[in-house]
Amino acid sequence: MTTRMIILNGGSSAGKSGIARCLQAVLPDPWLVLGTDTLVDAMPAAMQTSDGGIDFAEDGVVSVGPEFRELEAAWIRGVVAMARAGARIVVDEVFLGGAASQQRWLEVLGDLDVLWVGVRCESGVAAGRELARGDRIAGMAASQADLVHQGVAYDLEVDTTRAEALACARAIAARVRR
Amino acid sequence: MTTRMIILNGGSSAGKSGIARCLQAVLPDPWLVLGTDTLVDAMPAAMQTSDGGIDFAEDGVVSVGPEFRELEAAWIRGVVAMARAGARIVVDEVFLGGAASQQRWLEVLGDLDVLWVGVRCESGVAAGRELARGDRIAGMAASQADLVHQGVAYDLEVDTTRAEALACARAIAARVRR
Amino acid sequence: MTTRMIILNGGSSAGKSGIARCLQAVLPDPWLVLGTDTLVDAMPAAMQTSDGGIDFAEDGVVSVGPEFRELEAAWIRGVVAMARAGARIVVDEVFLGGAASQQRWLEVLGDLDVLWVGVRCESGVAAGRELARGDRIAGMAASQADLVHQGVAYDLEVDTTRAEALACARAIAARVRR
Amino acid sequence: MTTRMIILNGGSSAGKSGIARCLQAVLPDPWLVLGTDTLVDAMPAAMQTSDGGIDFAEDGVVSVGPEFRELEAAWIRGVVAMARAGARIVVDEVFLGGAASQQRWLEVLGDLDVLWVGVRCESGVAAGRELARGDRIAGMAASQADLVHQGVAYDLEVDTTRAEALACARAIAARVRR
Repeated sequence: MTTRMIILNGGSSAGKSGIARCLQAVLPDPWLVLGTDTLVDAMPAAMQTSDGGIDFAEDGVVSVGPEFRELEAAWIRGVVAMARAGARIVVDEVFLGGAASQQRWLEVLGDLDVLWVGVRCESGVAAGRELARGDRIAGMAASQADLVHQGVAYDLEVDTTRAEALACARAIAARVRR
Repeated sequence: MTTRMIILNGGSSAGKSGIARCLQAVLPDPWLVLGTDTLVDAMPAAMQTSDGGIDFAEDGVVSVGPEFRELEAAWIRGVVAMARAGARIVVDEVFLGGAASQQRWLEVLGDLDVLWVGVRCESGVAAGRELARGDRIAGMAASQADLVHQGVAYDLEVDTTRAEALACARAIAARVRR
Repeated sequence: MTTRMIILNGGSSAGKSGIARCLQAVLPDPWLVLGTDTLVDAMPAAMQTSDGGIDFAEDGVVSVGPEFRELEAAWIRGVVAMARAGARIVVDEVFLGGAASQQRWLEVLGDLDVLWVGVRCESGVAAGRELARGDRIAGMAASQADLVHQGVAYDLEVDTTRAEALACARAIAARVRR
Repeated sequence: MTTRMIILNGGSSAGKSGIARCLQAVLPDPWLVLGTDTLVDAMPAAMQTSDGGIDFAEDGVVSVGPEFRELEAAWIRGVVAMARAGARIVVDEVFLGGAASQQRWLEVLGDLDVLWVGVRCESGVAAGRELARGDRIAGMAASQADLVHQGVAYDLEVDTTRAEALACARAIAARVRR
């Protein structure tokens, strides 16, 4: 079987996007990168202030409502359909619901060959990088660091606390079946 | 029937993205905005320098190769699958191939209820707005202004030369079936 | 005398930045564009949540405190020093304090040859463009449209309600002394 | 004496901007961050294609011409004037000319109390981070890693190869006189 999808799951500022871009550089075939950020950017601005949408609280806690979940369900079906239609896709995800979030993907993936990757980073280090980036609400990194991995099963885990994004990408790429 | 997708087609700097954001604001249901820019951003950086990918020439002419077309075909299938799964989607497109580009969507759309919208802007005005934006290669607006509409059939056309994005969005919204 | 500085003043979404970029394109000499946005970007993120800094309220009203004013005073001195040292500078400003804001510049400018330009846009049109841009807090355009011009004296006024940024830039450029 | 300016010098992707944002967070007073990127953004787009401006070659080598140097000289005078007028400023610089670039600042600084900081990162690591960022031309990190430090004298050097931006910022902050 050929790997059609790599799903990276990790907290904010754990380094998923950097790993995703390095994967695009080291993998010989062209891979698309899509993820939570793509979906949130595609939503109406008003979803970020409605009760049913997505809420970024001042302490960095992110919560989502039923309207968000509904669009997300359709989004997941669409991304899986892209992979079934032949695209190779790196999915850059934040499983706020842990195992329940993974389950939403598993129900749609069927027999598609997916490589599940946990991207970890020590909470304190991720919080420092959040500060250095300057484009995230302070507190997101710390509040999500452990939460997003609860009950999630992986084929492989990487830890960016001391490893560079490129080294993590190489470790992941070695597990991709062509 | 209920409109599930609004496909906006127009040249660079014709004002499609502004209309799309206004549509999200004036339509009562939540609509996602996805488009050519989303796809290009999702591609590997190397696709912008490979022969098979997408090329932005210094004179503003954009051309795409077979690798781009292959990923785009899967992308279209996925976006249509999102709409079939219940998401309402505004597609922000640039039909570099005119009628042939529209045909790629028609083959996949089946009986999905789509509102086709042509977004026009006089070439000289679009070129001026390109200059004012400052984030596009000079010449894209002029080279695409007419090209992208060749042989394309619409339900409705709007012209941003003298109309504001919000007024165009209201005219489009009036044609959306709920 | 040679014009060393062009100060554009107008409300949010009135079209100042687009005019500034068009000025850079149509003026034969190289001009720098600096402004309120440059200063706010240079400030600590924490200034946007402290009482003494800058506050963007949910209704679009922007207010600034003593710490902001102190940094701004030094900023103005520095920008004027750049012009005295030979740089040509377009200043992209939002005079939240109207005449009092202009006075802060006048005290420092001395005999430097400045072209004062008011950039107007009908409140409703600016609010629509704010919606179309999607990157500004709703309400800023409407709350600032008239406020920023109160008691301010100009050499020239342009109105983007019906005129394109490039046409406004050409009208301004015609008044620049070389 | 009180430190009025912190000048960070390092190659592309060495981590200067992250350190600068962390400095803003850990230092008790408000500090502005200005730098090469601010200046380049303020310049006309055409400066990036003219012989006298700034050129980003495809291999990542950056070169600047006489028009760039002229605007930069005025820029330096203005930034120093801001500091003299009371602003605390972190300058985020890339000394493409090594010691000669430092000399341009020294001539203007006079007796202003400046903390000179070298920001180093092993060339291979910086190149990997450049790939992970995805918004820089490949090759800039490697071509600048050593070049920018040639003959430059520092009060303090930090190395981001194995240290986090926040830790580097704390080491720098400990040397700031209040």
